[in-house]
Amino acid sequence: MSVEGAVDGPVLVIGTGLIGTSIALSLRRAGVDVVLEDANPSALQEAVYRAAGTVLVDHEPTVVVVAVPPDAASAVLADASSRFPAATLTDTTSVKGMILDEAVRAGADPHRLVGGHPMAGRETSGPGAARDDLLDDRLWILTPSGSEGEEHLARVRQLVATCGASALELDPAEHDAAVAVVSHAPQVVASALAAILVDEPAERIHIAGQGLADTTRVAGSDPQLWTQILRANAGPVRGVLQAVADRLNQALDSLTIDSDHQQLPVASEHMAGMTEVLEQGRHGRSRLPGKHGAAAVRFAVVPVMVADKPGELARLFVAAGDLEVNLEDVRIEHVLGRPSGLVDLFVRPDVEEILIEGLMRLGFDVRA
Amino acid sequence: MSVEGAVDGPVLVIGTGLIGTSIALSLRRAGVDVVLEDANPSALQEAVYRAAGTVLVDHEPTVVVVAVPPDAASAVLADASSRFPAATLTDTTSVKGMILDEAVRAGADPHRLVGGHPMAGRETSGPGAARDDLLDDRLWILTPSGSEGEEHLARVRQLVATCGASALELDPAEHDAAVAVVSHAPQVVASALAAILVDEPAERIHIAGQGLADTTRVAGSDPQLWTQILRANAGPVRGVLQAVADRLNQALDSLTIDSDHQQLPVASEHMAGMTEVLEQGRHGRSRLPGKHGAAAVRFAVVPVMVADKPGELARLFVAAGDLEVNLEDVRIEHVLGRPSGLVDLFVRPDVEEILIEGLMRLGFDVRA
Repeated sequence: MSVEGAVDGPVLVIGTGLIGTSIALSLRRAGVDVVLEDANPSALQEAVYRAAGTVLVDHEPTVVVVAVPPDAASAVLADASSRFPAATLTDTTSVKGMILDEAVRAGADPHRLVGGHPMAGRETSGPGAARDDLLDDRLWILTPSGSEGEEHLARVRQLVATCGASALELDPAEHDAAVAVVSHAPQVVASALAAILVDEPAERIHIAGQGLADTTRVAGSDPQLWTQILRANAGPVRGVLQAVADRLNQALDSLTIDSDHQQLPVASEHMAGMTEVLEQGRHGRSRLPGKHGAAAVRFAVVPVMVADKPGELARLFVAAGDLEVNLEDVRIEHVLGRPSGLVDLFVRPDVEEILIEGLMRLGFDVRA
Repeated sequence: MSVEGAVDGPVLVIGTGLIGTSIALSLRRAGVDVVLEDANPSALQEAVYRAAGTVLVDHEPTVVVVAVPPDAASAVLADASSRFPAATLTDTTSVKGMILDEAVRAGADPHRLVGGHPMAGRETSGPGAARDDLLDDRLWILTPSGSEGEEHLARVRQLVATCGASALELDPAEHDAAVAVVSHAPQVVASALAAILVDEPAERIHIAGQGLADTTRVAGSDPQLWTQILRANAGPVRGVLQAVADRLNQALDSLTIDSDHQQLPVASEHMAGMTEVLEQGRHGRSRLPGKHGAAAVRFAVVPVMVADKPGELARLFVAAGDLEVNLEDVRIEHVLGRPSGLVDLFVRPDVEEILIEGLMRLGFDVRA
């Protein structure tokens, strides 16, 4: 018995990785019939074991959700279109234009195809990491092409709602341009920066602090998957990366000594290009969304030094809770060779004083 | 009465910003006489008010610590050298080679000069943000040139120890090469990336997640100060930035369509250059130091979903403390439009199971 308003099943999920299995689990949570398919028998078996659905036999799915890597997505969509001639077709690929165009070229029925991109993920992958609430309240971008039938678009919207996510409709090209800026190009920039560490002596890397760790964090991602994503979104990513490279070259130019003036330092007036890049960077950074997608709020930062042993963080958070102060964010700075940590508590400016005074009264080492 | 083994005073600190005032406060903590000077009367007054020392009158300092911005450091060192002909001279500038060379060229006595760079900082600046334990257990790099007298080097080492920091001695050029890699070049890369956000429509930036926020975090820094730092370390920074630009161009090349094959997609085999950058990036990222400067430990990540209200984080940390599990790091992921947050708890792999089972037993929404 399915939840009222839930999408009609059976829904076929092709590709039982993290995203496919999570979609299946959230559909099952709403009582929707789900059938599963995966080229990898052990991934399929694990998804079935986790009760994400049953193995596809001779079902006639109402919707087919293709959740496979970018290199395979177009062919799988086209194949699904011919195998299930009445089904609504959607996918979860993080690139839309090229994937959908290729799918149609390969034979997918454009009348039944509505591209999708759920903006969710985890540090881990595979069906074992899937959760039935991974999509809850997440943005799930849909990219209607204009060729789809209204009933198929409505059905995909219903699928998204059934999974607990919020649909945002974008033109496929606009989607690809947006993810190139906020995700794909930053991935390459972080990787290019982290790549230089391969050849540096360990003694240099040893003195690195939190700044380099943050700037390169996403460089830890899977190179094979990212190669596929970047290939599929080559045009928009190339444009954004070229813009970054232009700024980097502007910065580099400002560090170049005139051949007429061999000696250091670079003249101060020559640094104007660098200052401009740094100023634009600060301005650009300030445009990022704050918590909950609200306009960026400037939180107050209350630094507290805590000992590095079990229970110390707890004591601090209990105190904040007792003061009825909500922590918007927490950053723990680990100090080289120090058996303690500086914890930055981010709070709304109007409760900063309450937190500082309260923590000090309780004997905390507040560094505000 | 000064602490046994403390450096002999009076120590003159020129420049009562965050670092200078913190050094003064930690020397005062050890009972060392401190005198202060700053071109800005209100900064000087605030440092005196905070009991960091007294205003310089006709004292004869044993050591002069120059803690002024990079553009002023060389001239202030040279000036101090002539005003106090017996004093040991050191500085706190984050660039060493050019600053020290210029100081000597401007008249600073190389026999009494030992460059320094305390690796400490805070989100805030100015004497009001200074702390007497800011330097405790921090790395404080010293860059003896070989021209200094042994007694002056010994005195600067003693100063560092008195402030509670750990001295690491490096050749000035090696220091500058190292900070170019771990700090200066990453700053420019983050700024160049964040700079492109200035011209992007808000709707695109709106869908950004944690990845872009982390990659661009340091781009929020002060452009004027950073212009001075980058100018003073132009040579090494240029070299590192050029290496990053080379990787970025390699990545860009792989996204370029052959003029013979106008149509998308980029051929898979053409992506080898991109894959190499991504793989090198992952390798380079893995070389970053872990907590406490130890070799990077791969921590286990235990994700827990918590409601976004006061006390919820506390409940979680209390539970971890009760389980006697030490949290090595914490990351709070804010989900767009979601009134709750996914908290990633980083723990040593050998206690991961204890934490997961314990938290589940207590009813936490563990997503492992």
